[in-house]
Amino acid sequence: MNDDQKKALQTLKTAKGQIEATIKMMEDDRYCIDVSNQILAAQSLLKKADLLIIKQHINNCVREAFEQDQGKEKVDEVIELLAKVIGK
Amino acid sequence: MNDDQKKALQTLKTAKGQIEATIKMMEDDRYCIDVSNQILAAQSLLKKADLLIIKQHINNCVREAFEQDQGKEKVDEVIELLAKVIGK
Amino acid sequence: MNDDQKKALQTLKTAKGQIEATIKMMEDDRYCIDVSNQILAAQSLLKKADLLIIKQHINNCVREAFEQDQGKEKVDEVIELLAKVIGK
Amino acid sequence: MNDDQKKALQTLKTAKGQIEATIKMMEDDRYCIDVSNQILAAQSLLKKADLLIIKQHINNCVREAFEQDQGKEKVDEVIELLAKVIGK
Repeated sequence: MNDDQKKALQTLKTAKGQIEATIKMMEDDRYCIDVSNQILAAQSLLKKADLLIIKQHINNCVREAFEQDQGKEKVDEVIELLAKVIGK
Repeated sequence: MNDDQKKALQTLKTAKGQIEATIKMMEDDRYCIDVSNQILAAQSLLKKADLLIIKQHINNCVREAFEQDQGKEKVDEVIELLAKVIGK
Repeated sequence: MNDDQKKALQTLKTAKGQIEATIKMMEDDRYCIDVSNQILAAQSLLKKADLLIIKQHINNCVREAFEQDQGKEKVDEVIELLAKVIGK
Repeated sequence: MNDDQKKALQTLKTAKGQIEATIKMMEDDRYCIDVSNQILAAQSLLKKADLLIIKQHINNCVREAFEQDQGKEKVDEVIELLAKVIGK
């Protein structure tokens, strides 16, 4: 596992803890807007993890594919993923 | 807890399970694009939970505030939250 | 037209100017990342206009519907819209 | 201009037309939810244009940078842009 993947994994674990805390808040009947802000914090962590994964994917898999003249398919795959990420 | 809150709580628990599965995938060194798609699925669940919370918040807290002529502040609070949700 | 609608209309007009400037940048063959940042600025303006429209919609149409005990359908309509806005 | 850039430019022009139509709708005092849906359609076009620009950027600028062992900085630049695109 490279550095970006390690950071992504750590961020996912933090996101999991964040969601556990949010579940606890709902069970304690906390104010909806506060719960919603906690969900946003979890989403922000997931986006961060996702960007780290995409970054190392381009730096490794896509770079290697370019070297073997098979970059276009790999880039298409990344763009298809990004289309889902940005909700297109 | 009203029905929408119960559904939101259940959805958060599903999102937690989804993130646990994604952590496992990373530890098993699965293909980056597949991991990223799993993160997207977790984000989709968080958005669903968030919408349920906002929905019941408008139907309850905001409606009651309108009845007491204090709706505007509550709507401002919701819009401020939505601004963060949509990344404005 | 109320104040929030006037602001939304003005913001849409600014967004239109922003897109015209971005089109010009592409025709002048400017650096892709700079073009992309200009598109982001236009999207940010559209989000701002959208939030203003949703805000005055809740403050007016939804509030009136609550007074006539028909709020739930109006809120469902707003939530359906928000689901599209946040890409759920 | 390559094919993806041409498509992006055409999509930006369509987005401009879409915003002009939305401005007209607001001036005609059309229903807020309908106006908001038109704004969403414009945002969807901008996202499409942005993805085309990012795609050809990776296929050209980033690929060339990899060949000169300067890929990492270019990827960092793309990821910084994506962080803004996805609202992180």
